Amino acid sequence: MCRHIVGMEDVMKVLIMFFSMLFIVPQTAFGADSPLSADSDSCLECHTSLHPGIVAAWQKSRMSKITPKAAKALPAKNRRVSFDQLSEALAGVVVGCAECHMLNPETHKDSFDHNGHQVHTVVTPRDCSTCHPVEAGQFEKNIMSHAYGNLENNPVYQDLTRAVTGLQTFDGMTTSLLDPDELTLSDACRQCHGTSVRVEGSVSKDTPFGDMEFPVLSGWPNQGVGRINPDGSKGSCSACHTRHQFSIEMARKPHTCSQCHKGPDVPAYKVYEVSKHGNLHSSLGHEWAFDAVPWTVGKDLAAPTCATCHVSLLMTEEGDLVGERTHQMNDRLAWRIFGLPYAHPHPRSPDTTIIRNKAGLPLPTELTGEPVMEYLIDEKEQETRRGRMKQVCSSCHSRFWVEGHFRRYENTIAKTNEMTLTATKILLAAWEQGAAKGLGQKDSIFDEAIEKKWVEQWLFYANSTRYSSAMIGADYGVFAEGRWYMSKNIQEMVNRLHFKMKEK
Amino acid sequence: MCRHIVGMEDVMKVLIMFFSMLFIVPQTAFGADSPLSADSDSCLECHTSLHPGIVAAWQKSRMSKITPKAAKALPAKNRRVSFDQLSEALAGVVVGCAECHMLNPETHKDSFDHNGHQVHTVVTPRDCSTCHPVEAGQFEKNIMSHAYGNLENNPVYQDLTRAVTGLQTFDGMTTSLLDPDELTLSDACRQCHGTSVRVEGSVSKDTPFGDMEFPVLSGWPNQGVGRINPDGSKGSCSACHTRHQFSIEMARKPHTCSQCHKGPDVPAYKVYEVSKHGNLHSSLGHEWAFDAVPWTVGKDLAAPTCATCHVSLLMTEEGDLVGERTHQMNDRLAWRIFGLPYAHPHPRSPDTTIIRNKAGLPLPTELTGEPVMEYLIDEKEQETRRGRMKQVCSSCHSRFWVEGHFRRYENTIAKTNEMTLTATKILLAAWEQGAAKGLGQKDSIFDEAIEKKWVEQWLFYANSTRYSSAMIGADYGVFAEGRWYMSKNIQEMVNRLHFKMKEK
Amino acid sequence: MCRHIVGMEDVMKVLIMFFSMLFIVPQTAFGADSPLSADSDSCLECHTSLHPGIVAAWQKSRMSKITPKAAKALPAKNRRVSFDQLSEALAGVVVGCAECHMLNPETHKDSFDHNGHQVHTVVTPRDCSTCHPVEAGQFEKNIMSHAYGNLENNPVYQDLTRAVTGLQTFDGMTTSLLDPDELTLSDACRQCHGTSVRVEGSVSKDTPFGDMEFPVLSGWPNQGVGRINPDGSKGSCSACHTRHQFSIEMARKPHTCSQCHKGPDVPAYKVYEVSKHGNLHSSLGHEWAFDAVPWTVGKDLAAPTCATCHVSLLMTEEGDLVGERTHQMNDRLAWRIFGLPYAHPHPRSPDTTIIRNKAGLPLPTELTGEPVMEYLIDEKEQETRRGRMKQVCSSCHSRFWVEGHFRRYENTIAKTNEMTLTATKILLAAWEQGAAKGLGQKDSIFDEAIEKKWVEQWLFYANSTRYSSAMIGADYGVFAEGRWYMSKNIQEMVNRLHFKMKEK
Repeated sequence: MCRHIVGMEDVMKVLIMFFSMLFIVPQTAFGADSPLSADSDSCLECHTSLHPGIVAAWQKSRMSKITPKAAKALPAKNRRVSFDQLSEALAGVVVGCAECHMLNPETHKDSFDHNGHQVHTVVTPRDCSTCHPVEAGQFEKNIMSHAYGNLENNPVYQDLTRAVTGLQTFDGMTTSLLDPDELTLSDACRQCHGTSVRVEGSVSKDTPFGDMEFPVLSGWPNQGVGRINPDGSKGSCSACHTRHQFSIEMARKPHTCSQCHKGPDVPAYKVYEVSKHGNLHSSLGHEWAFDAVPWTVGKDLAAPTCATCHVSLLMTEEGDLVGERTHQMNDRLAWRIFGLPYAHPHPRSPDTTIIRNKAGLPLPTELTGEPVMEYLIDEKEQETRRGRMKQVCSSCHSRFWVEGHFRRYENTIAKTNEMTLTATKILLAAWEQGAAKGLGQKDSIFDEAIEKKWVEQWLFYANSTRYSSAMIGADYGVFAEGRWYMSKNIQEMVNRLHFKMKEK
Repeated sequence: MCRHIVGMEDVMKVLIMFFSMLFIVPQTAFGADSPLSADSDSCLECHTSLHPGIVAAWQKSRMSKITPKAAKALPAKNRRVSFDQLSEALAGVVVGCAECHMLNPETHKDSFDHNGHQVHTVVTPRDCSTCHPVEAGQFEKNIMSHAYGNLENNPVYQDLTRAVTGLQTFDGMTTSLLDPDELTLSDACRQCHGTSVRVEGSVSKDTPFGDMEFPVLSGWPNQGVGRINPDGSKGSCSACHTRHQFSIEMARKPHTCSQCHKGPDVPAYKVYEVSKHGNLHSSLGHEWAFDAVPWTVGKDLAAPTCATCHVSLLMTEEGDLVGERTHQMNDRLAWRIFGLPYAHPHPRSPDTTIIRNKAGLPLPTELTGEPVMEYLIDEKEQETRRGRMKQVCSSCHSRFWVEGHFRRYENTIAKTNEMTLTATKILLAAWEQGAAKGLGQKDSIFDEAIEKKWVEQWLFYANSTRYSSAMIGADYGVFAEGRWYMSKNIQEMVNRLHFKMKEK
Repeated sequence: MCRHIVGMEDVMKVLIMFFSMLFIVPQTAFGADSPLSADSDSCLECHTSLHPGIVAAWQKSRMSKITPKAAKALPAKNRRVSFDQLSEALAGVVVGCAECHMLNPETHKDSFDHNGHQVHTVVTPRDCSTCHPVEAGQFEKNIMSHAYGNLENNPVYQDLTRAVTGLQTFDGMTTSLLDPDELTLSDACRQCHGTSVRVEGSVSKDTPFGDMEFPVLSGWPNQGVGRINPDGSKGSCSACHTRHQFSIEMARKPHTCSQCHKGPDVPAYKVYEVSKHGNLHSSLGHEWAFDAVPWTVGKDLAAPTCATCHVSLLMTEEGDLVGERTHQMNDRLAWRIFGLPYAHPHPRSPDTTIIRNKAGLPLPTELTGEPVMEYLIDEKEQETRRGRMKQVCSSCHSRFWVEGHFRRYENTIAKTNEMTLTATKILLAAWEQGAAKGLGQKDSIFDEAIEKKWVEQWLFYANSTRYSSAMIGADYGVFAEGRWYMSKNIQEMVNRLHFKMKEK
C-alpha cells in the first residue's frame, strides 16, 4: 500500500525552505535603484485596501519593478521602451499608479482633484506613448485604433448595427424596427469597437474616507480597441495589455485575441485552435518562454501564436532579424479578409470612412466585388507585406511549403469572392423582382430575412473559409461555418427568392 | 552545433537526486497522525488491483492525507470542514473508501453486504454532510439540487423534453412523435439534471474473488447535480467535486462548470472564455494558487473563475472578507437569466414546481413576460444579492466601473425580454390564426417548426445575449448566438407565419 | 507596502545558478554514445540558419538524443521502437535529418540530388517503418490511412464533395454548380483526408548558396492522415506526431485529434472537452506524465485523453496490461458512428471503396439503414472490440458503471439511426413526389436545400448525439447540435416537402 506519495512538489518545497535560509535574496529582481514615487506611494496607501486585486496585479508587473531609465539601458533588441527623452521625475522611478493616472492632466478632460492630486481614470495610448512612442505611433496606423469611427461614421455599418441591435416590435401582423439605445450599443458592438468616453458632469459620493467628488463618465467602463478617450486620443492599450499586470505573456497568448476574434464573423481564434500551430501551442506551449524580448524562434517558441505572426519582434538564435515589432498589425498582411462583402487589398488609411465606391457607398469594393483601388494598397505593397509574412513562415518552413500555402490561400480568396458574388446576384434579383426592398427602394439592406442570409454568406461563411485557409484550420473551411454553409445558404436564398416571387 | 541542450528540467532532476539523498523527507504532508481505518484498508486490498485509477486518484486527494480532526483544528478561515461533532471512529482516521461508502447504511436502500461489510455504491450529499453539513445545507437551497424534479415534475418542461428527445416517425406524409425511452432520457437531459437512482433488485456476478451478489441500480451511472439518490437525498457532490481526487483546484476551474454550462441554452463557459476574466485565467492561471483556503484576491488569483464569483470564500491579504463561501450559488445573483422565456428575479424556493402563473402554468412569468412575484425574490432581496456580487467585483474594479457594468446588464435584461415578447406575439398570432397549434388547441407548444424557432429566441439567443452582458464576452451578444440571431429569428418567424396564413 | 515580491521563480533561478557552478552536468541525457551522422551534420550546417525553428524542434526531440540501438535496448514495455534488425549505420547514430530524408531513395520519386546528397522532402510512413514497423503495419489497417482513396474513389462522396466545394453561379434565376478546382480541394476536404503528392517536374531556384534544382510537387504541403506519398505509401505520421519534435506528449493530448475531429461532422473534441474526462484533463492535466511509456493508469494520468482509449499502451502500477498499443485505432471500437447516414459495425477492410449495398451504392448500409454485413465486422468481433474498450474503462470504473454506460450508448445508436430513417423517408417522399430530384432522377443527392437538410440530420446531429453518448458530453446530445436539432430539422424538412408539393 503506497498511500502517501511524496511528489516532486514536496521536495521542491523543502529545497526552497533550505535555500531561503542560506541565501539572502536580493530585494528586487532589478536591484535597489527602483524607487516608487511619493505620489504612487500615497495612492497605494488607500487603494491597497480598496482594490487589492488591482494592486496585486501591478505588483506582479514589470512596470512595478523597473524604472524607465533601467529599461532604456538594455541593449536595443531587448528593449521594451522606445522613448528618446524622459523627465528625470519619470525616468528614475518605477511606473506606479501616479506615473500613468496623473500624466498629461492638461489634455485629460476626465482629470479631477483627488486628495490634492490631479488624477484621471482613463489611461490612454497618449499616456502610454510617454515611454512607448514608437508603438503608439504604429498603433495609430492600425485600423483597430479607428474601430469606433469606422463603425459609427459609416452609414452602411450604421444600417447593419441598427438591424442587429435595434428593438423589433410586432403589431398588425408586421414587425417594426426601433433604434437601439446607447446602453445596448455599449453592451454589443462597442465592447470590441470601443465606446466614446465622455465627461458628463460630476458627482459627490461618500467613501470610506469621507465625501468626494468624481467625474461622471459616459461609455464607461470600456476597453475596446478603438475607444475614443477623454483626452481625444483613440484606442485602449489595455484591450490587449491587460491592466494592471500588463503581462507580455498574456498579450502574446492567443486567448487575448480571442476576446474579439472568435465569433462567426471573425473566427480567427477558433481556426487557430484547430490548426497545427494552435495544437502546438495548446500541447507544448507550457514549455515556451512567453516573456522573452526579443522572441527567439525555436528557442523561445516552437510555433506561432497570433502575436508571433502579426506583432512581435522575432529573431533567430544567431541574431538574425525575422520580423520587426509592429503595432500596425496589418503590415504583414496583403489582404483584408473579413468584415466586408468581399476580401480586398488592405485600405491605405486606417480611417475607412473616407472610402467611396462608384455607387457612392463607403465600401472598399463595389457590391459586385470590384475593389476601389484608389483607397487600397497596390499590388507592390501587397507583395511587400506578403514578403514580411513569408519571412516569418520561413523560420520553420521551406520556401516550397510557403509558396504552396499562399497559392491555395490566394485561390480561396478568389473563389469565396465568387461565391459572394453569386449570393449578391440573388439578392439583387430579389430587389429587382420586388421580393425584397433594398438600395433601389431606399430601404435597409440588412433587415429582411433574405438580406440577413446574404450577410451570413460573406460575414460568416466566406470569412470563415478564408480564415481556415490562412491558418490551416481544416474544419472551418468545410463543415464548421465554411464551404458547407456557403453552398447551403445559396440554395436557401434561391428558394426564398422563388417563394417570394410566386407569392406576388 | 548545439545539438544536446541541457534544459532546466535536467538540472532539476540532478538537484532532486542530490537532495533526495541528503534529506529524509517526512512521510506525509500531514505528519504521522493520519491513519487509515481497517475497513478502508481492507477495501484497498482488492480494489487497488481492480480499479487502480480510482485508488490513485484518492491517494492524490486531501481526503487520503488528513483526518477530520486535523482538518477541524485549522483556523476557522482555513477550514474546509464544517461539522460540530464527529465520532472518534471517523474523526481520527483519514477519509478512505469505507468512511464514505459505508456511512448511513440504514438510509441507503443501495446498501449491500460485500465481504462482510455493508457498503453502498452511491455516495450522496447526505453522506458528505457528515463532515460538511453547512455546505450540504446550502446546497439544499441551491436550485441545482432540485434539477431532477424541476424538470420531471413540471408539465411544461415535460412537453419540451418530449419534443426534444422523443422519436419522430414519418408516415402518410406527416410526422408523429413518440415518447422518449428511459435510456434516452438518462443519456440526454438527465446527464446534467440527474437521474433517479433506484434499486431494482439484485444480481449475482462472478468476480476475480468468486461469485458475489450486487444490487441492480436503475439510472446508474450518473453524476447529475440534481440526482435522486437511493437514500432519498438530492444531488451529487461529485458533479463538481470529481471523484476520487475531490480536487478543490478542479472545482474552482471553469472547465468543471463547462460540463453543463456550455451549450447554446446556457453558454456561460463560452462567454467566460472570451471575457477578459477568462482570458486572464487561460493566459496566466498557471501562476495562481487554486487550492488555497481562503482564496485570497490578488495573492492567489488575478481574475475570477466561475467559483470565485458564485461560490468561494474570498478574502483580502489584509484579512478582510470579500465573499462568504456559499453552495447556494444564486445568493449573489439578482436575476435568473436562462432556461425560461423571460429573465426574472430568482425563485424563492429551489423547488420551482410549486410556481403557478395566472394562466395556471408552472412558469415564473406569464407568457407575456410579467413576473409572478409571489414566488420570486423581491427587489430588496435582489439588491442584497447584487450587493454581494458587487463586493466581489470591487476587489479589482472601482465603484464607477461596477455601477456602469450593472447599468448595462439590467438594460440588456429588459431589452432581451422585450425581444422575447415580440417573438411570443408572433407565436400567439400563429396560434390564433391557425398557422400552428398551441395552448388554445391543447397541443404541444414545442413540436412545430415555428414553435421551435420561438424556443430558440429565448433559450438560445436572448439567453446568450444576457450571458454576454453579465460576463462581457462580446461576440456572444452580437454574432455568436446573440443579437444577430434574435433579430434574424424574428424575421424568419414572421415569414413562416405569413406563409402558413397564405397557405390557408 | 510589499511592493517587490520575490516569487518562487526567482529563488529557482538562484538555485539553478548555484548548482550550475557546482555540478558538471552530463552533456546529454542519454550519455556520450549518441553521435550524429556526418550526413545529418552537413544538413545542419546550412539549415540551422535557414529554418532555425525546424532544427530547434528537432533538438528538443527524443529522436535527436537517442540512437535506435539504445532505444531498442530498453525493456520491452518501455520501448518505442519495434524493429528487429537495423543496419549499423542507422542503429548507431541518433535520428537526424539524413536518417529520414535520405532513406529509401529508390522508392522516393521525390528524391533529388542536393549538394551531393540524395534527399526527399516528403517523409512517409514507409520511411518511419524502418524503426517502427509494427506501428506502421497497424496504421495500414487504420481506416484513416485510406482517407484519401475512401473519399476520392467513392462516387457518393465525390457527389458530396462537389456539392460542398464546387462553385455555384446564378443566371436566369437559377443556380449552376461547377466542379471544384484542385487548389480548393487541397484547401478543404484534403487538409484532413490528405492530398496526392506527385512530382510534376523540377525547377531551378536561387538560394543563399547559389542556384539549385528542386522537384516540383503537386498537393504540397499537406499532412493529411491519408496522404498519398511519392513513394506510393499512404498516410502521414506527422499528422499526429508533429514534425520535428515528434513529441509523444503532443500526440497524446486531445488538441492533436481536434485538428480533424472538432467540426459538426465529427465533434469528438468538443464533446470530450465538456465530458468529465475532458474536464479532468483541462483542470489537472498539468500534473500528469504525458511522456511515460508505458502509460501507467493512475500514476501517470488520472483520466483518459483520446490516445488513452484509442491508441496507447496502458499498464497498471502492478504491471498488468490494460490495453495494447494500437495504431489501428478502431480495434477497441464496435461501431462506426460518423461520416455515413447510419451508425454501423466497423468495416472489415480499411478500404471502404470495395463496399456495395443492394442498391449498388458504395455505402455500408442501405439508404434505409440495414447494414451490409458482408463487408462489416460481425457481432463477435464487435464484442471483442467492445471488451478491449471496457478493459480500459475498468481501470477507473466498476463493471456496473461500465455496463450501464454501454447500454445507453447502444440504445442511442439505435434511436439516432431511427431518426435518420425518418429523415430519409421524408427525402424519399420528396424525390417520389417530385419535390426534389434524387437517385431516381439520376441527380445529385446533395445539391438541393432539402437534401442538405437530410445530410445535416445524420452528418451533424445524429452524429453529435452519438458522440455525446459515447463520451458523456451532455450538451452535444441535447441542445448543442444534438437531439434538439434532430427534432427541429425533421419538422423543417416536412415543411419544405409540403411547400414544394403545394407549389406543384
